[in-house]
Amino acid sequence: MARAHNFSPGPATLPEPVLRQAAAEMLDWQGSGVGVMEMSHRGREFAQIFERTEARLRELLAVPAHFRVLFMQGGAIGENAVVPMNLIARRPARRADHVITGTWSKKTSREGERYGQVHVAASNEATRHTTLPAPSSWQLSADASYVHLCSNETIGGVEVHELPDLRALGSEAPLVIDASSHLASRPIAWDRVGLVYAGAQKNIGPAGLTLVFVRDDLLGHALPVCPSAFDYATVASNGSMFNTPPTWAIYIAGLVFEWIAQQGGIAAIEQRNVEKAALLYAAIDGSEGFYVNRVAHDCRSRMNVPFFLREDSLTPAFLDAARERGLLQLKGHKSVGGLRASLYNAMPLAGVQSLVGCMQEFAAHHG
Amino acid sequence: MARAHNFSPGPATLPEPVLRQAAAEMLDWQGSGVGVMEMSHRGREFAQIFERTEARLRELLAVPAHFRVLFMQGGAIGENAVVPMNLIARRPARRADHVITGTWSKKTSREGERYGQVHVAASNEATRHTTLPAPSSWQLSADASYVHLCSNETIGGVEVHELPDLRALGSEAPLVIDASSHLASRPIAWDRVGLVYAGAQKNIGPAGLTLVFVRDDLLGHALPVCPSAFDYATVASNGSMFNTPPTWAIYIAGLVFEWIAQQGGIAAIEQRNVEKAALLYAAIDGSEGFYVNRVAHDCRSRMNVPFFLREDSLTPAFLDAARERGLLQLKGHKSVGGLRASLYNAMPLAGVQSLVGCMQEFAAHHG
Repeated sequence: MARAHNFSPGPATLPEPVLRQAAAEMLDWQGSGVGVMEMSHRGREFAQIFERTEARLRELLAVPAHFRVLFMQGGAIGENAVVPMNLIARRPARRADHVITGTWSKKTSREGERYGQVHVAASNEATRHTTLPAPSSWQLSADASYVHLCSNETIGGVEVHELPDLRALGSEAPLVIDASSHLASRPIAWDRVGLVYAGAQKNIGPAGLTLVFVRDDLLGHALPVCPSAFDYATVASNGSMFNTPPTWAIYIAGLVFEWIAQQGGIAAIEQRNVEKAALLYAAIDGSEGFYVNRVAHDCRSRMNVPFFLREDSLTPAFLDAARERGLLQLKGHKSVGGLRASLYNAMPLAGVQSLVGCMQEFAAHHG
Repeated sequence: MARAHNFSPGPATLPEPVLRQAAAEMLDWQGSGVGVMEMSHRGREFAQIFERTEARLRELLAVPAHFRVLFMQGGAIGENAVVPMNLIARRPARRADHVITGTWSKKTSREGERYGQVHVAASNEATRHTTLPAPSSWQLSADASYVHLCSNETIGGVEVHELPDLRALGSEAPLVIDASSHLASRPIAWDRVGLVYAGAQKNIGPAGLTLVFVRDDLLGHALPVCPSAFDYATVASNGSMFNTPPTWAIYIAGLVFEWIAQQGGIAAIEQRNVEKAALLYAAIDGSEGFYVNRVAHDCRSRMNVPFFLREDSLTPAFLDAARERGLLQLKGHKSVGGLRASLYNAMPLAGVQSLVGCMQEFAAHHG
């Protein structure tokens, strides 16, 4: 079939020019005689790819010099253990403050319990993850090693639109952000964070690459049980090559960063993301209840839009109608049902327009 | 340039038909409208790729039903921690017997010390990793949780050609094999092993995928500090999808397995590997000392052939001559110098013939 509009929550759609370049260079990267998957990670060619990728990423996100960028493996779920193994011993209490914003951050807090005390500072569970607790209401510990926040939840569809200033809230702890599902979709307030991590398979590239941005002063606190390959200080001092990094995924990420730059950079990408999300939410809210999104307006995610048909029994028919238009992967997460559209960077406005058209036609027919 | 013969120790050369197919399917996998990197790991299409890949691998290597195949991340260096986190607590002494066969297994034993006692049962350090200690000489513990052996060392260039029968040596411990650099190049004696692991980036596919074959009875002993994403029991019970697996790397591995099957399977591949290695060793040994390989004949690696010029100062000139012929990545590991040719499955006989031709010409010119 022709290229579909793929609304998968991740792994997710990638920019077509990236895929075309990757295909064209598959057997011979820029006259080197070998493809990128076949390159020694310590060779001249891959070093060039790697350096360009990191430089472009730093430039796009305006990463300050006192943050290291690490290219790791294991995804965000891996990081749920790797973060405490690296940071929990910063303070003697070995306590981490967790803000629960949805399914993923709940999972994160449970994993954290393997390595120290987890204090739930705030949670949106009472509203079934459809709101975000105001930072002023967070019950922060005096002695936390860090404060963990997942700033976009793919299942509930909530997004933190302004990172909290922990110092203003009386905490000296560094803010740790799981930004897996919206990294590179908007700028980051670096002065408010200590560490940001993200699995790549949403806005960045293929699954199997994990990006970690860590402030210099947070290195060097790893527990003895932390595997060397996951010790941030070891990874940093070896330029992400203590073990063989996922070279292909890094290469694709580099092409994606190049594509973002060509789109006008993060500010331009953010503007497009705002427009795409606004279009879809307007279609839902304007459907007179035929479609419903339950998330409070001030924390609706630009990336992941879960929505439901008033008549839930029509959901399979809607999915069929969408598929006929080449609109794929719109089924909601199994834990909540309904529908979900993920609108990552690489989803074009035309894809959202087509989805909205499909929704309106379906509502007219079944309303 | 035209496709080179790439002797990189890893990431390493891949079969050209695999690269061609990957390029052709990049934007649209088999009429699905999406590329493999863009597929949800839980979708129908990727499930198909995943199941075929595992089935083909099991068939090729004749993996018994009581072994699980896990698709993980973190590479062999990650596994150096993941193995003890999963197995060291099997026995109260929390001791692992390690056989040192080279640089990598030394590294493995040091990492193991984070999680329990490491007992070096045998080592080839006295011969600078040019021999292998006979299993009958191994000093095995009575109470080891497992015995670790790296069965092919890429730097020293030694290979274990017959796995030991630990029961015959009086040990009840399972044998754990780091087979990173020769997995799928030869059959595995499953009745002699408890666990086999391998980074993919030699014979299997791109860096970022780790294969683990684990006997059922070894599941369920993980330390509490073992991250869930690296707990073999958790990974196994979730069909390698507890976290998002490296989907692209799994797809490429599947294409490589298909290619191996088309070559006639593991037996045929092994025969070719024997021939390729014999050709190169014969050229070295027949050079009247112009080229030298220092490894004892009974444990020379078929995969990684380190060799040296009698006149070490000629090494850069040799590398230049090789490069002119399109023979790449022949520089020896920085810790030992000299030259090294890695002859993984995807290196064709023609590549080795070309290398031998280059060596003979260079010797004639400089001898």
